[in-house]
Amino acid sequence: MNLSAERTKSLELAIDEVVKSYDGARDIDNLESAALPNKRAVIEAFCHLRAAIYIGFYSQRALNREVLRYALSEQLYPAYELLTEQIRRAVTYEEKMGHGPARRPTWSDAVVLRLVHALPELRETLNDDLLMTYRSDPAAKSLEEIVFSYPTLQAITAHRIAHLLHDEGVPMIPRIIAEYAHGLTGIDIHPGARIGRSFFIDHGTGVVIGETSEIGDRVRVYQGVTLGALSLPNVADSDRHKRYKRHPTIGDDVTIYAGATILGGDTVIGAGSIIGGNVWLVKSVPPKSKLFGRARE
Amino acid sequence: MNLSAERTKSLELAIDEVVKSYDGARDIDNLESAALPNKRAVIEAFCHLRAAIYIGFYSQRALNREVLRYALSEQLYPAYELLTEQIRRAVTYEEKMGHGPARRPTWSDAVVLRLVHALPELRETLNDDLLMTYRSDPAAKSLEEIVFSYPTLQAITAHRIAHLLHDEGVPMIPRIIAEYAHGLTGIDIHPGARIGRSFFIDHGTGVVIGETSEIGDRVRVYQGVTLGALSLPNVADSDRHKRYKRHPTIGDDVTIYAGATILGGDTVIGAGSIIGGNVWLVKSVPPKSKLFGRARE
Amino acid sequence: MNLSAERTKSLELAIDEVVKSYDGARDIDNLESAALPNKRAVIEAFCHLRAAIYIGFYSQRALNREVLRYALSEQLYPAYELLTEQIRRAVTYEEKMGHGPARRPTWSDAVVLRLVHALPELRETLNDDLLMTYRSDPAAKSLEEIVFSYPTLQAITAHRIAHLLHDEGVPMIPRIIAEYAHGLTGIDIHPGARIGRSFFIDHGTGVVIGETSEIGDRVRVYQGVTLGALSLPNVADSDRHKRYKRHPTIGDDVTIYAGATILGGDTVIGAGSIIGGNVWLVKSVPPKSKLFGRARE
Amino acid sequence: MNLSAERTKSLELAIDEVVKSYDGARDIDNLESAALPNKRAVIEAFCHLRAAIYIGFYSQRALNREVLRYALSEQLYPAYELLTEQIRRAVTYEEKMGHGPARRPTWSDAVVLRLVHALPELRETLNDDLLMTYRSDPAAKSLEEIVFSYPTLQAITAHRIAHLLHDEGVPMIPRIIAEYAHGLTGIDIHPGARIGRSFFIDHGTGVVIGETSEIGDRVRVYQGVTLGALSLPNVADSDRHKRYKRHPTIGDDVTIYAGATILGGDTVIGAGSIIGGNVWLVKSVPPKSKLFGRARE
Amino acid sequence: MNLSAERTKSLELAIDEVVKSYDGARDIDNLESAALPNKRAVIEAFCHLRAAIYIGFYSQRALNREVLRYALSEQLYPAYELLTEQIRRAVTYEEKMGHGPARRPTWSDAVVLRLVHALPELRETLNDDLLMTYRSDPAAKSLEEIVFSYPTLQAITAHRIAHLLHDEGVPMIPRIIAEYAHGLTGIDIHPGARIGRSFFIDHGTGVVIGETSEIGDRVRVYQGVTLGALSLPNVADSDRHKRYKRHPTIGDDVTIYAGATILGGDTVIGAGSIIGGNVWLVKSVPPKSKLFGRARE
Amino acid sequence: MNLSAERTKSLELAIDEVVKSYDGARDIDNLESAALPNKRAVIEAFCHLRAAIYIGFYSQRALNREVLRYALSEQLYPAYELLTEQIRRAVTYEEKMGHGPARRPTWSDAVVLRLVHALPELRETLNDDLLMTYRSDPAAKSLEEIVFSYPTLQAITAHRIAHLLHDEGVPMIPRIIAEYAHGLTGIDIHPGARIGRSFFIDHGTGVVIGETSEIGDRVRVYQGVTLGALSLPNVADSDRHKRYKRHPTIGDDVTIYAGATILGGDTVIGAGSIIGGNVWLVKSVPPKSKLFGRARE
Repeated sequence: MNLSAERTKSLELAIDEVVKSYDGARDIDNLESAALPNKRAVIEAFCHLRAAIYIGFYSQRALNREVLRYALSEQLYPAYELLTEQIRRAVTYEEKMGHGPARRPTWSDAVVLRLVHALPELRETLNDDLLMTYRSDPAAKSLEEIVFSYPTLQAITAHRIAHLLHDEGVPMIPRIIAEYAHGLTGIDIHPGARIGRSFFIDHGTGVVIGETSEIGDRVRVYQGVTLGALSLPNVADSDRHKRYKRHPTIGDDVTIYAGATILGGDTVIGAGSIIGGNVWLVKSVPPKSKLFGRARE
Repeated sequence: MNLSAERTKSLELAIDEVVKSYDGARDIDNLESAALPNKRAVIEAFCHLRAAIYIGFYSQRALNREVLRYALSEQLYPAYELLTEQIRRAVTYEEKMGHGPARRPTWSDAVVLRLVHALPELRETLNDDLLMTYRSDPAAKSLEEIVFSYPTLQAITAHRIAHLLHDEGVPMIPRIIAEYAHGLTGIDIHPGARIGRSFFIDHGTGVVIGETSEIGDRVRVYQGVTLGALSLPNVADSDRHKRYKRHPTIGDDVTIYAGATILGGDTVIGAGSIIGGNVWLVKSVPPKSKLFGRARE
Repeated sequence: MNLSAERTKSLELAIDEVVKSYDGARDIDNLESAALPNKRAVIEAFCHLRAAIYIGFYSQRALNREVLRYALSEQLYPAYELLTEQIRRAVTYEEKMGHGPARRPTWSDAVVLRLVHALPELRETLNDDLLMTYRSDPAAKSLEEIVFSYPTLQAITAHRIAHLLHDEGVPMIPRIIAEYAHGLTGIDIHPGARIGRSFFIDHGTGVVIGETSEIGDRVRVYQGVTLGALSLPNVADSDRHKRYKRHPTIGDDVTIYAGATILGGDTVIGAGSIIGGNVWLVKSVPPKSKLFGRARE
Repeated sequence: MNLSAERTKSLELAIDEVVKSYDGARDIDNLESAALPNKRAVIEAFCHLRAAIYIGFYSQRALNREVLRYALSEQLYPAYELLTEQIRRAVTYEEKMGHGPARRPTWSDAVVLRLVHALPELRETLNDDLLMTYRSDPAAKSLEEIVFSYPTLQAITAHRIAHLLHDEGVPMIPRIIAEYAHGLTGIDIHPGARIGRSFFIDHGTGVVIGETSEIGDRVRVYQGVTLGALSLPNVADSDRHKRYKRHPTIGDDVTIYAGATILGGDTVIGAGSIIGGNVWLVKSVPPKSKLFGRARE
Repeated sequence: MNLSAERTKSLELAIDEVVKSYDGARDIDNLESAALPNKRAVIEAFCHLRAAIYIGFYSQRALNREVLRYALSEQLYPAYELLTEQIRRAVTYEEKMGHGPARRPTWSDAVVLRLVHALPELRETLNDDLLMTYRSDPAAKSLEEIVFSYPTLQAITAHRIAHLLHDEGVPMIPRIIAEYAHGLTGIDIHPGARIGRSFFIDHGTGVVIGETSEIGDRVRVYQGVTLGALSLPNVADSDRHKRYKRHPTIGDDVTIYAGATILGGDTVIGAGSIIGGNVWLVKSVPPKSKLFGRARE
Repeated sequence: MNLSAERTKSLELAIDEVVKSYDGARDIDNLESAALPNKRAVIEAFCHLRAAIYIGFYSQRALNREVLRYALSEQLYPAYELLTEQIRRAVTYEEKMGHGPARRPTWSDAVVLRLVHALPELRETLNDDLLMTYRSDPAAKSLEEIVFSYPTLQAITAHRIAHLLHDEGVPMIPRIIAEYAHGLTGIDIHPGARIGRSFFIDHGTGVVIGETSEIGDRVRVYQGVTLGALSLPNVADSDRHKRYKRHPTIGDDVTIYAGATILGGDTVIGAGSIIGGNVWLVKSVPPKSKLFGRARE
């Protein structure tokens, strides 16, 4: 591991060059580091929230009603403290960069408190997702197996939290949570997507659900399904911050099989439809449609 | 980080509401936490087993025949202890919930001992998988590169261990191992799938191999291949615990290119067939078939 | 956790069998462990390099020009030391196994120094990738969001470093870096692939870019795209170490939508072409081609 | 780090010999390890209790009355769980070895609950110790400095907790706590010693306070003071478990300067006495005595 | 680990009582936690400074002149950052409590910068201490052994840094450093003590050197030596913050053998004196005195 | 935490000065760091040896004869590897500095193997020490309490290992082990001291046992006892490496009470003597002497 003097000099020279490379005004030259949110802290906060939602699966303590309150506090106090601080950083940074509106200093506390108050309702919703998963997958031997192992529940839990924060107008944080789940599961749901109750994703790898997608209740989606935008060559900055609908709308009780691709903000899949595997769809279909790609053998 | 008294009160109130939300009998309200298996311990046990299988790649010690025994003990004792405890928890929990049969307290020891005794044979099998990978991928520059980096070997190693435990009737644990590998590699193989010798998966992201799939020897599979079930709207609980065949059977020496989808329990791909990329198949084909999707340009 | 004497004996017996299973000359029996590179150290070195490239996003310090030099040294000294040692191990091992050429002991230092000297230029290139991502994705609300969360930037950063090392002829290490990024993002780019400036991958899960692919400037690629080889049943060892072109060439300003598959070393996609989703291509197309799979409804 | 085969054989042989050395019935051959208390867990429990006592000095949170309850729970739940388990192990072990009385399984819970209920009173007592320290040491610039840095407060806090457990009849645990404090501070107080209110030890290194010492209120002790037993050559086992008084009794308001040695169970130092540095005392002195060793120059 | 509901209730009740016990205004009730210095951070800063002083003994890198600068930066940047923050906290807290003078916000930076600028001189001084130790102890086989193992060097290094900070008027921090060394070595030197060059302590356990001690050059001190104050029953607060001399003055070239006790602010030990073991001294002695306690056999 | 540019410049300047301060040839300027032993690794090796000696007290596994061998290997392999490497470094360094004799490269392996082979005998010896402690201290309620908590056993265990290494001529390492125990217990035994069987130290703080002390069997020593040298002003280097006797000889069955000081290489305490507390002895006494300091009241 001995660096000879000559090689050390060369390394020092190289470091000088890297230092100099920060002299321009490139977009990766950001030196505002101390003010940016900390990715690890955001993910830690998310993990505390998840543990509070499924406390029976994450606690190492024996739980009875008396202990339960402490076990939840043990997750929700740190979740509150971490998330408040990170949101505060994100909005301060955004404001400083001129991207976002000015907010009162207590805004991030208020957002996180509303999120914690929303947890009971969120638990109802996730319970429905869990039951839908159990009913839809014959390979699921027990509910415990799903909570422990299924990527779909990981992804939808992260999404429902990220979506609440996205709806509040929190910058950066929802996307960090969404990409954390994407990395773990291969399921890429933009925090902006609106997803109804009792949602089920099977296997999940390669699923993409775009920012302005709207999905009804009791929808089933298989691996490799894309709910995407029709292409737009380049993005004007004026477009970026208007939210206009680029992704499809899926009605209640729709099933979309593996590899199907549905594109476009005006595309509406009528309630009760079944979209076959690998189907490619860029226009609307009426309720109860059954579309299958031709078998290609 | 100062929580004003008012905000603390609001947080305490929210915690009360979350506590109350555990009062119903929802499926995510499980308070049996202390009895459930610990996911992290299961994965740790798996990592010890993997290290024992590829000891030359995982040991930091210089190995000679004398040291080898100690290096293996160092992996297999903790593997035995961790896995025995987690299986014991899983069967106790299952029994308590009324899902599974009663078992003697030493059952989990016996299962793990059988698994350890099976390791020499498993190493032969994985050696064949390794050689098949080397022979099939011109980008593989050396066997070491494959053991170190290839997701396919990660996935097949996890599967072969999970499958042994699944065949023993161990609940929950096999799926935790399978989903650990799924998260790392994007390859989703249900522990129930039967896979022959010299199996090769290229790239792997998006591969799905369902619970009742049967795969012959020397089969090659590319990224995004699905061996799935034809859809069944909802699962009756009576069906769930009967294992009936929902996924295809793949003969010896079959190659299945990227994105092909093969569905259904009665679908049999005859030995020596080649299934082209993106092909969609829901019925059987005779041996030596060559199916290609039409190029769509 | 008490192991009865009988079960311990059975475990000891099983360990004996596993020891014996190392007696053959199987390919997974490698006992050269102490000489192999350490995967964790390679990844740690990569993380230091990445932090030096995006120092403003990874540093916890407040940065000004004076501090910057120290903050970069803090990343680049360990990167240098770790990577030098791991490359040295890889080439020593390779040489010992007879796979690779003999190299002077200082070769690995020289390689890493060249890599560090190349960082300023690499930062320019990645800056272009970042801007291309921002311009191409209307869902990207800020550059910070992309650096923090987008898998594409993770994957392309790892690739550009791995590719530099691959071009130097470093064994094993580039692939370890590439598979680290693959595991995190689901994007599988072989270190050998040549990729032009301003490259953009959307979502990314399932993207596969083969070893001898060549990609022009300003290319956009969506999830599930494969740039692959036409199949070759088995690989002769003589072929393995000649690099012959098995993967396609993509011209400047090409867009390839989700799920498209382009195969073969002679396949050339002319500049400015648009390849639609799920298209399957095994021959060349002229510049400005627009290919769409037939919508299958 | 390479162990040649020959040296490995020698090491293996040596291990065999060490194994054999456990064949006798020596006192250090104890193989009941799994049942013994875990020293680290005992110390961790003590640290949680200490943090609950001085929460303002140990918490990283901003505290207000609302948060306080959670901050205390965060210390007292783990303290309770850890200590209950370790006491349970200690009494089970003792009972099995035939040293101690049989106890109901819930005894250890009851002991720890009594300890937690005693904390408010203990805090009063320690507050008096803190004030006495502040008043007695002109070098103490603030109360905060004492809580943060003074060995005396460390030692007396550990003693008062260990003494409560000792009075309950808990085996092994009180001594582990006492020796933890001894290691940190050089102050060796046996958990059996009875110590009154407002106790002060200056510097502390080398202070020894024996098992049956009794110390009044407002006593000051300097470094190197011994309250010891007159010697008894060998201890009969019958004597060991009868507690008879072997160490001195110190009245209220006594000051004992550095290096003084006071020995014997019948030795009583009358209230208000001052015992000079290095004095050697084996018999009682009346109240208000002033004893000084002759200056030896 | 199962807490029955009844026992949980009792624990919750006890926690309520502990909460209530913070309602008074006791001196240990301090709820300003978030503003207090963090002990662990202070010690970490000290360890970085120590490593910079003895870089050759603490660095894991091979050092040449080129690398040296980086190796020192790696210690001194974190030392600066940690210590500045902790001093800032300490003075802010002190000011808030009304104990100390108001200071400009940059005061703590200035103090730490002066400390770092003083390191070269400090290294000269410690080098003399090291040589004195080597010359004075025939059991020292090498200088390396002393730097690695001798408590005396640990204690004097901590003292010289703590003393610099004490002289600057930094509150709390010097004492935390001093007590850290006291805990490790059993040597208790108040940060206020003035100690000349080439100081040597043998063995060290039990050495106490009071706040206003003054020690000349080339002084040797053995274990258990006290340089203390004559007693003062209680400390008036007015006295506390005037520094008046309570501890002795030791001339150049004095040797003080084990267990000697020298007390009082007016006591001066003339240069070149030898004070025998266990001697008790409360008045001055002229230069070249030789005092021995009578052997007591 | 923001370092303004001005302050960073001042810090950089200070670092330059510290760099310059390494330009001389001072004794603390050692830049051979990479070749020196690593203190932490030495202590880790010692802890493994200690665990192998008292395996029943340190193992978390349930032990039976079958498991025992593995549990011991788990301690002795790492002990062997760590200690061999550190001794190798120490002798290489010493040789390079010209302090020590040249040794064959396998010398350190041979030393450590002899140490491991000596463990069974060492366990006999320590068993006697343990029994002697139990018989001598009425406050010891059980053997377990002694192994867990008594500083004496910690100190004597470290000494007996350090002494074996010292006798082999290993440089630096024995002293690192001795000072580790000194820091934990306040008992300072030089590795060179020869100590007979059944040795007992009570409390221990402040005990000093010099390099050339010789101690018989069944000796009891109390806190603050010194077995020291008569003073020698400065040490000539020629003297340092000749071992001549500077510390006393203690016969069998001697008891030395707290604070006694016995000095000089010619001082012999006859067998069966009792030396009272605080006695100061610089000449020999015949067997069965009873010396008491006059009580000074």
